[in-house]
Order: sequence, then structure tokens, then C-alpha cells
Amino acid sequence: MHIVDLNCDMGESFGAYKKGTDDEILQHVTSANIACGFHAGDPATMRKTVQMAIEKNVGIGVHPGLQDLVGFGRRSMAISPQEAYDMVVYQMGALQGFVQAEGGTIQHVKPHGALYNMAAKDAELSSAIAEAVYKVNPDLILFGLAGGELVKAGEKTGLRTASEVFSDRTYQDDGNLTSRRETNALITDSEQAINQVIRMVKEQKVNTVNDNDINIKADTICIHGDGVTALEFAKTIKNSLKEAGIEVRKISDIK
Amino acid sequence: MHIVDLNCDMGESFGAYKKGTDDEILQHVTSANIACGFHAGDPATMRKTVQMAIEKNVGIGVHPGLQDLVGFGRRSMAISPQEAYDMVVYQMGALQGFVQAEGGTIQHVKPHGALYNMAAKDAELSSAIAEAVYKVNPDLILFGLAGGELVKAGEKTGLRTASEVFSDRTYQDDGNLTSRRETNALITDSEQAINQVIRMVKEQKVNTVNDNDINIKADTICIHGDGVTALEFAKTIKNSLKEAGIEVRKISDIK
Amino acid sequence: MHIVDLNCDMGESFGAYKKGTDDEILQHVTSANIACGFHAGDPATMRKTVQMAIEKNVGIGVHPGLQDLVGFGRRSMAISPQEAYDMVVYQMGALQGFVQAEGGTIQHVKPHGALYNMAAKDAELSSAIAEAVYKVNPDLILFGLAGGELVKAGEKTGLRTASEVFSDRTYQDDGNLTSRRETNALITDSEQAINQVIRMVKEQKVNTVNDNDINIKADTICIHGDGVTALEFAKTIKNSLKEAGIEVRKISDIK
Amino acid sequence: MHIVDLNCDMGESFGAYKKGTDDEILQHVTSANIACGFHAGDPATMRKTVQMAIEKNVGIGVHPGLQDLVGFGRRSMAISPQEAYDMVVYQMGALQGFVQAEGGTIQHVKPHGALYNMAAKDAELSSAIAEAVYKVNPDLILFGLAGGELVKAGEKTGLRTASEVFSDRTYQDDGNLTSRRETNALITDSEQAINQVIRMVKEQKVNTVNDNDINIKADTICIHGDGVTALEFAKTIKNSLKEAGIEVRKISDIK
Repeated sequence: MHIVDLNCDMGESFGAYKKGTDDEILQHVTSANIACGFHAGDPATMRKTVQMAIEKNVGIGVHPGLQDLVGFGRRSMAISPQEAYDMVVYQMGALQGFVQAEGGTIQHVKPHGALYNMAAKDAELSSAIAEAVYKVNPDLILFGLAGGELVKAGEKTGLRTASEVFSDRTYQDDGNLTSRRETNALITDSEQAINQVIRMVKEQKVNTVNDNDINIKADTICIHGDGVTALEFAKTIKNSLKEAGIEVRKISDIK
Repeated sequence: MHIVDLNCDMGESFGAYKKGTDDEILQHVTSANIACGFHAGDPATMRKTVQMAIEKNVGIGVHPGLQDLVGFGRRSMAISPQEAYDMVVYQMGALQGFVQAEGGTIQHVKPHGALYNMAAKDAELSSAIAEAVYKVNPDLILFGLAGGELVKAGEKTGLRTASEVFSDRTYQDDGNLTSRRETNALITDSEQAINQVIRMVKEQKVNTVNDNDINIKADTICIHGDGVTALEFAKTIKNSLKEAGIEVRKISDIK
Repeated sequence: MHIVDLNCDMGESFGAYKKGTDDEILQHVTSANIACGFHAGDPATMRKTVQMAIEKNVGIGVHPGLQDLVGFGRRSMAISPQEAYDMVVYQMGALQGFVQAEGGTIQHVKPHGALYNMAAKDAELSSAIAEAVYKVNPDLILFGLAGGELVKAGEKTGLRTASEVFSDRTYQDDGNLTSRRETNALITDSEQAINQVIRMVKEQKVNTVNDNDINIKADTICIHGDGVTALEFAKTIKNSLKEAGIEVRKISDIK
Repeated sequence: MHIVDLNCDMGESFGAYKKGTDDEILQHVTSANIACGFHAGDPATMRKTVQMAIEKNVGIGVHPGLQDLVGFGRRSMAISPQEAYDMVVYQMGALQGFVQAEGGTIQHVKPHGALYNMAAKDAELSSAIAEAVYKVNPDLILFGLAGGELVKAGEKTGLRTASEVFSDRTYQDDGNLTSRRETNALITDSEQAINQVIRMVKEQKVNTVNDNDINIKADTICIHGDGVTALEFAKTIKNSLKEAGIEVRKISDIK
């Protein structure tokens, strides 16, 4: 029996600015990565998102990002491992405040945007992030790019990890995602995207841009919550996984 | 036997900006109110301040402020009770992240600057703050102006509270501090300041600007950590309290 | 011949957060109040909004707000007149940078949200804002609530002013807007709203909540740019004014 | 006759945080790079610094930085050329607001910290910065690292440029500064530092870490304003230059 988690970024509204349709997308995913006020999110949004996630029994994740609100945490910054450690501890704590107040529990941590991408390639940065998670709560699951440095660092640190795969991105022979600067980075055909994830989950393989098959571990699938087709795609992928005999469950309920 | 707590704001540095001499002042106070990044403080400063406080066995307090870095949280803002609740939960959590990572425990919560002053006079705001503290951790002690609304709200909510008094501020007949806009707001004579606090602790009385004696509860004394004479005054007040037969102990070790 | 200006807040997007349909609303108003990065807006949004306003020959206005991004500048803050002066100079300059770069000119200044409301009632604050405008550029037109302190301060300072009226808000006998906390603050009936502004422009009178007629000066009408019906209402009001024989022209082209 | 400009970063205080001794250092330098609120500085500080610079007849410079207050603009960020353009226009405008209000004129633009270093090596980024300066005010002088891309871009764009040299940093054979990560990056011997700049000004040569002589253009010397010895060193270098027959004058008064 194959089982996989579906995760989605949320809680990315900020003050008067609304982003995403969290209440709807929460009905289709099993884990929620909740922004913590650095790249997006604010205290009120965090509270509401935590409440909705608890109500819908979705796994609650900390989604720490770089302190770059205007850039939505998507621009790489030359931060030190110590700075990465500190910003992850801070944001984990901030979300935990709301989770405690609402009587829930945190399930996982998944860094956002540039921090996620930087960590995937930087062992030292990843080690600092993993240490932050471990010291605040060693029971949390660390999400990182399948095959990347963050997953390795998490395991070395003693954390349970989840290898994340993408349905709508193409892969290189070395297991990295094709850079968004390349024209073939995105899979826009919905059927192709679904076939890619089904194969990743069932066979632990993915076909690269060079038409090679490589091994890949798929514990959780990233679903995008923003954009007009996001909700539709979330439903489609969930149904397609079920039809393919893959059970969709939040990561902490797997194994 | 009279016992009192000495508390001081700290962790108010920010990035390249250094403020206060926390390592020195920590040797003379028993409770530390640590800024959480809204009015002052940043993740690195929070980590270091928590480490120092644990090392010196000083009671660790959350010091939540308004999100007004350039105004240092000193300018009143028309926030709603819900907004006050959310900002306190967020900042409590953020500090707790570092405290958990360092293996310590939080002792108390004391709002900063304008939030403290607004709460002292606003029952609804105080109720929201007390609820935030209670929901995140009902074992924490809530610090507020002696006789003010925050202490009342804390008690109503079921929290242990600590009534705070000031050595260097004069009092009105209704128990409020004289506004800083008045010329007689500050007590600049060190001996007069010390006599005022000794009397507040021993007799639970203070002489007001109109030369009336009023009742006041003095669980903890506010010590200012900033300014050239801060350190010297902290030492002096501590010694004077001891000489007057008053024991100085952190609030969680009293009773 | 009656002439009036139609102004609208815009440039209120921020980073990944989009707000309003500025390109469309710009086709129906004659003056644009462009956010400057304190309560909303960012450098990229300011550049694009200035470019669009120049292209459509709409009067460009500085729209300075309180430094409260998460509160969208809508929460009153206890700022000093000097702080108001400084924040207005800063934001005027910032917008002027983009206007100079694009070869345009600034027409007016209209404070945003809480700053606007505070100024309407506070002569000292208004005087500081008027001085800021005058010292940066004495040729600009200062927008303020009809009958409020800002318009008075602007005139005293030597600036040309524009008295602003609202179509969708009810008025008190003293000329103030009914507080939004009251149930009768908003005029939701579109026809009633239009009749109110037409009368204000033509007769310089408005009927208050107590059914009294008071005098009011109407140089410019505030149009809301946000919300689903904003665009529709902007078109309707513009057409209704024309049908009533009132010409709609940007304020600097009047007189 | 040799002439050189002495420039120093200032206006880097922020709210309650004081940094540097601007009023004193202003007596020894000829050009001031004034922070604009992104990496440091706030509206009140900008106003005061502009006032002091005008009073002391020191050349006023815009000192735009990355929007990274907690990192003091020292951490490289992956910004696009368009983002660099926008942030420079914004900050130029903001400072110009205060300069106009005080009746002064801006002399130059010098990017701060990471933005300066990134520009020195990135032709595209430098081109965007130079275009921003040119479009806001083509009469301004653009400061950049001697031999770096920013100076080249400025010249290509049609701006007057000033090549900046450092007294307390060692140079590589290719004209770059030795990275601060290297042990030999800093010149701590005051006499050696002074001899280096005198030679750079008089002979347009500098001796590299590999003991080679390379050509270098020295229009302006960077003086550090922060740290205990900053003021002393500023006086010393100014006197030493005079003794060596080099006149010290603000850059706009040279040629």
C-alpha cells in the first residue's frame, strides 16, 4: 500500500492583503505550512490559519522564511548558519504560541522559498536549520527537497524527515529541480504532472529532462495554494492519487 | 520578612545597534523582561539574552511591545483587543522558542512601553492580554502597574500577577504614575527614590504628589537598564533594600 | 459652471500582494493619491503607478501614511507634530524620486487613513503636515477634509488647498463625518450617494444625519478604489456628475 | 597640486538607537553619505543629518542600501536590476525631500554595504543603479569602488563619477579589495594606512598583497565613522594629507 502526504503553503495573507483561499485548499491537503510573519503572514492570520487547520485535522507545519516581506522571501540572502538558526527558532516559537493557545500540536517544519532552496544545496545552513528544529522540538518532522542537504542534515541531527517532491517541476539528472530560468522548468500539462507524482510515489523514480530515470523518495507532495487553478489542481491530484491506489494521509499518520 | 523582586527590561539591542549593558545589569536584578522583536530585539539578541538569564538564574520574562520599531514601542496606537491578544501570543511564542532551545523556563510576561501604559488604563485591552498569557501558558505570572487594569484582568483570568512599582516616578492620589509631561514626574534624588521603594515594600504605602499616603502593593520593582547611571543605581537599590532588611528574590521564588 | 475633481487612493499593492485595479480606475478619476511605502506601496508599485498616472494625464498626489504596514495605516498613533513633519517630507521625497525619473510633476498631497483623520481634528498636527508640504514644494495643493483642521492649516501656511467630500459617508451637524462605529455612517444606496455629492458641488450644502442643512466646500470627491463595486461606482458617479452639468477635471486644471 | 575628497557614512542612527558621532566627524570630512531608512536611518535622523551637513558645508550624498535593517544592509541579496533601480530612486527621493526642505543640494550617490559590493562586480546591477541616479538627477556624482563596475556604468550612462579608495583595506592584484574573510584584509597600522592613501592620491598606485604595484584612481577616500578610534583616525588622516601637500576638498569643488 502506497501512502503520501499532500502539503501546501498557507497563512500568507498580511494585514489588509489577502492571499490564497486557505479555507478551501485545507479541504484537499493533509499538511499545512503556515507562514510566520517574516516573508508573509501576521499574528491574526497565523491564529486563524491554525484554527482552521486544527478544525480540519490537517498537520500543522512551521513555514519559516527570510525576513524579506517585500520580496516574499524569494530572494536569496547571504545569511550565516547562526542567523538561519535564530530565525528558525524565532518563527517556530511564534507559531507554537498560537498552536498552544488553540490546543493543537505542531507536526513539521518546512522552510520557505529562498531559504528552502538555499538549504537544499548548503550543508552548513541545513545543519543549522536542523539543529534549530531539534532544539525547539525533537519530535517534529523536517520537510526538505528529496535528495537535498536539508533532509540529510535532518537525519544526521536525529530528526524524522520527509522528502518532498513536486508535480509541476521537471528534474535534472542529479535530482535537482530545473531552474525556473530554464524554459523547461515547469510542467504545465496537468496529466503529465499527475503521472510524474504517481510514478514517484509508486516506483520511487522520476524521468529527468535528459530522459533518464533516477531514484527519488516521495514522502510528501508540494501543492501550490495560490493562483486561479490551484484549488482545481489540488482536487484533481488528490482524486488521481486515490484512483491510482495511493492513500493520502498527513505525514504524522504515516508509519 | 519582606521580599521583593527586581525587574529590568533587556534584550533591546537590534542588529548592529547595541543598547544597554545586559550582562552587567543581570547581576543585580532577579527578573528580566526580554524584548521580542516588535519594539526592539531581534532573534540573535533574544537567544543571547535568554542564555545569559539562564546562566545567572534570573527569571525570564516575555516583554511584548507594539510593532513600532522606530518609536521603540513608546507611542500609543489604537489597536483592538484582538490585535493585542494576537501580538502577545506571537511574541510569547517567539521568546519561548529560544527558552525551549536553551532548556529554560519562562517565568512572567510584562508588556512594554505604550502597551503597558494603555493596558493599565484599559480593562478590555488588559483582558485580551491576560487571556493571551493564560491560553499560551497559565502558569506564567503577569506583571502590571500596581493598582492598574492589567493586574485586575490577570487575576480575573486566573493568572498569578505581580504588582509593579517604580522607584524613580511620583504617584498621583489615584495610584497612577504622574505623567512624564509634568515637571514633577521623575524622582531624581537617589535617596528619595530608595526611601520610596523601601516604604512601598515594607508598609505598602506611598506618598503622593499631593502629600497624601495611599496604599500600594509592591511585588516587583522596575529598574531601568539604560543610561549611564542605570548600573550604579541597580547596585545601590539592591544594597539599600538588603540593608533595610528586605530580601531580593525573583518573583517565582517568592511564596 | 461647476467643476469638481475626482480623487482615488492607489498604488497600494505591496510586493507579491496585489490590491485594487489601478489601471482601470485611473480611466475614471482625475487625481491619484499614490501610497509611498509606509502604510502600503513599495518602490516598484510606485514607479508603475506614476507611469500609469502620467500616461493617463491624471494628477499625481503624494499619499503619506503612518508607518504601520500590517494595520494599513488605519490605526491612530500618538505621533508628535515633528514626527508627522518628518514622515511627510520623507514620503513626499520618495514619490518625487519616481515622478522626476518619469518626467512628471506632483500635483497634490493627501494624507492617508489615520493620519488624515487625526489631522482633520488636530491643528498642531495639521500645521506640521502643511509646513512639510510647503518646505518641500510650496506649489503643491493640500487635500483635507472639508471644514477640517488640515485645510485651515494649509491656508494659513500659504498653500493652495482642496476641500474633500465623501459621497458614501454621512455628515454630522458640525461637518464631521459620522464615525464608522455608528450604524448610519455609510450611504449604501448609490443614488443617494450621488445626489449628496451633486448637491455638495452645486449648492455647497449637505444634509446631516439630524436632517439639517450645513454649508460644505467640495473641491474634490473621494472615490474608493478597492472592493468589487469600486470601478462600477467610479463610472456611475462620473457620468452622473456630467449629466448634472458638472465638469470633472483634475484639481490643478481648475481655476 | 593634488586634491582629494574625504567621505564618511553617517545618519545611521535609528529611532532610539544612536550610532556614530556625526556632528564631530562632520568637522573632518568633506562629503557625507547619508543613510535613507532602508539599511539604517529614519526620517528624523535624515533631517538632522542634512541640517548638520549643510551647516558645515559638507557635500551631501544619498547612501541607498538594501532593505535589511536587522542586517544593516551588509548581507548580499539576489535582487534584480529593476529592484536595484527602484530602491535607489526611492531612497534618492526620500533624502532629496529633506534636502529641498532645508534649502540644500545633493552632491553625490554612494550605495551602501552589500549593494556597493555587489555593484562593484556586477555590470548589469551597476547599470541599473547608474540609470536610477541619472533619471532622478543627471548632475549628481556617482561614487564607486576604484576600478569597479559601478564607476564604469556611471561613465557609460553620462554621469560624473568618483573613484573611491580605502586606507585601511589591502588590495588584490586585480584591484579588488581583499575579502574580509582573509586575515590580511585590514590594515591596522595607522601609518601604513596613511602612506597607502597618500601614495594612491599622489602616484595613483597601490602596492597589493602580492607586493605588486597596480594603478588606481583616488578621487575620494572612505573614512569609517563608527568605532572608538574613528574620530581620531579622521583627524590624523586629514592632517597627514595636508602635510603631504594634498588638499582636502569636497568632490563637487574639485576641478
